[in-house]
Amino acid sequence: MSKFWSPLVQRLVPYVPGEQPKINNLVKLNTNENPYGPSPLALEAMRAQVSDDLRLYPDPNSDVLKHAVADYYGVRTAQVFIGNGSDEVLAHIFHALFQHDAPLLFPDISYSFYPVYCGLYGIAYQPVPLNEQFQIRVEDYARPNAGIIFPNPNAPTGCLLPLEAVERIVVQSPDSVVVVDEAYIDFGGDTAIALIDRYPNVLVTQTLSKSRSLAGLRVGLAVGHPALIEALERVKNSFNSYPVDRIAIAGAAAAFNDRAWFDQTRQAVIDSREQLVAQLREQGFEVLPSAANFVFARHPTRDAAQLAARLREQGVIVRHFTQARIAQFLRITVGTPQQNQALIAAL
Amino acid sequence: MSKFWSPLVQRLVPYVPGEQPKINNLVKLNTNENPYGPSPLALEAMRAQVSDDLRLYPDPNSDVLKHAVADYYGVRTAQVFIGNGSDEVLAHIFHALFQHDAPLLFPDISYSFYPVYCGLYGIAYQPVPLNEQFQIRVEDYARPNAGIIFPNPNAPTGCLLPLEAVERIVVQSPDSVVVVDEAYIDFGGDTAIALIDRYPNVLVTQTLSKSRSLAGLRVGLAVGHPALIEALERVKNSFNSYPVDRIAIAGAAAAFNDRAWFDQTRQAVIDSREQLVAQLREQGFEVLPSAANFVFARHPTRDAAQLAARLREQGVIVRHFTQARIAQFLRITVGTPQQNQALIAAL
Repeated sequence: MSKFWSPLVQRLVPYVPGEQPKINNLVKLNTNENPYGPSPLALEAMRAQVSDDLRLYPDPNSDVLKHAVADYYGVRTAQVFIGNGSDEVLAHIFHALFQHDAPLLFPDISYSFYPVYCGLYGIAYQPVPLNEQFQIRVEDYARPNAGIIFPNPNAPTGCLLPLEAVERIVVQSPDSVVVVDEAYIDFGGDTAIALIDRYPNVLVTQTLSKSRSLAGLRVGLAVGHPALIEALERVKNSFNSYPVDRIAIAGAAAAFNDRAWFDQTRQAVIDSREQLVAQLREQGFEVLPSAANFVFARHPTRDAAQLAARLREQGVIVRHFTQARIAQFLRITVGTPQQNQALIAAL
Repeated sequence: MSKFWSPLVQRLVPYVPGEQPKINNLVKLNTNENPYGPSPLALEAMRAQVSDDLRLYPDPNSDVLKHAVADYYGVRTAQVFIGNGSDEVLAHIFHALFQHDAPLLFPDISYSFYPVYCGLYGIAYQPVPLNEQFQIRVEDYARPNAGIIFPNPNAPTGCLLPLEAVERIVVQSPDSVVVVDEAYIDFGGDTAIALIDRYPNVLVTQTLSKSRSLAGLRVGLAVGHPALIEALERVKNSFNSYPVDRIAIAGAAAAFNDRAWFDQTRQAVIDSREQLVAQLREQGFEVLPSAANFVFARHPTRDAAQLAARLREQGVIVRHFTQARIAQFLRITVGTPQQNQALIAAL
């Protein structure tokens, strides 16, 4: 604490990201990175940008990338917002769209950055408990709210809400924005981008950090009605005119354009997930149904914190959350078949 | 306007960055980019990062870069904050350090993003007029304030405040933070980083977009007392854990480590500036004394807006601001001797 701090700063409880260890040779299954590298065409596009032109500012609107996203999803560029990772996109969404009188709603078990954003922007919120099966219940969101946000598939559970249920939540709250945080959608769900032309209150966020293997590049996006996108642009242009660098714009656009690599690697992750789920169940774990690139599992007799510590001693890192309802679960990123094997052997 | 917007959004007046034209062959002297490319060692370091490792998140703390900056300035890493361009760093500073009861003070003619940040975070401010020679007067800042910020050299004037005058401002307001925005300091001034060990209330921001030729990469920094840096880290970690990508961390660190390239190119810009000033004065322009990589000039008889338009027709773009006191000035980035010649010829 310091007298120089804005009063807000002392109250903040910052987000704690998963560990990024500086040791090599770890089997790193703790931050849901893709085990496969990015598209070779994306790498090529990035290399081409490493030149004297870096002396020049990037396009503040990331137009090339907006076009690639719009093409991919069959939407207009006015329906696309680009940011420096989907965490930045989410921050702008909280600031631009969730400051209203009623509380914001999100699941009690979900992305732990949401309450942090609420603290940063002074937004009241009400966690809505998942049911006993760790699923979102649509009817629980039928109450006054300043907005609704949930990951789909949910994190850290991996559970998917079917698109028709997402639509019911959107229809149920026509006066507030429903944000569907689709960081993991490509591993097993249908995107709510299908809804944006019919509903002005649905906004979908995605990231290039997971299914497009570019966590190290920092690119995220939102897709929705142009009025929602305009709110985000206004906040972005009051915060940082040039949030995405020249290399990232080119690399991310090329990643969207390389559909073959995308399809091949995400299918490999899905196949690997199914194998991992089977192996964990053989070891006696209960594994929640996952549509993501991670699984959420608990053992009936082995303590999760101890398990995580033992795995680490053997060079395998997974993520353990201490929150009450899920303290006996481990969140395990789906690796290559070899990495999964190393995990199973270490168990 | 939309019912979905937070009330704040409608009130925002976003910053308007200089044009980034998509036409080639323009002599682009409008956004103060460096006419020389970045360090070849920085390019090499960036190329090495374009690999499958981009599937992994970057270091959320940018430690390699913090060390490079700390080494360069002889400070500790706990005194260094890193962000996605100095605009992001400034945004966090406004949020973390300037929300107090009194108004924030900054020059009436200065970086036009400052009032935008105030709008974004609800900060009251009071512009302090520059004197008739467009200089900052130290005694004008001796009044109750929630903080003080000014560019040094100032933008868009290019005028430098000597370090001893900066120190007097810092001493004069011991209970608030004085931010010295040194985007252009390397082209002719002494950095206030020299003051940080003696004064807990001085914070210096810098960018790699100007003297280090990396506008396209988006890296900025702040240097000051660890308590000020901690405030920024808390806000940053409540906003985006990973604001700087793997390529940018490596490229920026290499740029700081390549002192020879830095010294050579900044000296070339300084030499070119002196030549440009002389040429403009020969053409009858009044040119303010510049310690930056741009000059601020007006002609006694030719209208600035018309001049800017004519130059554009001839493929030379410069920046013109419509603000009252400076509406007859042009801000002209220092180019290579060839670019400067093209400008003079077009005039």
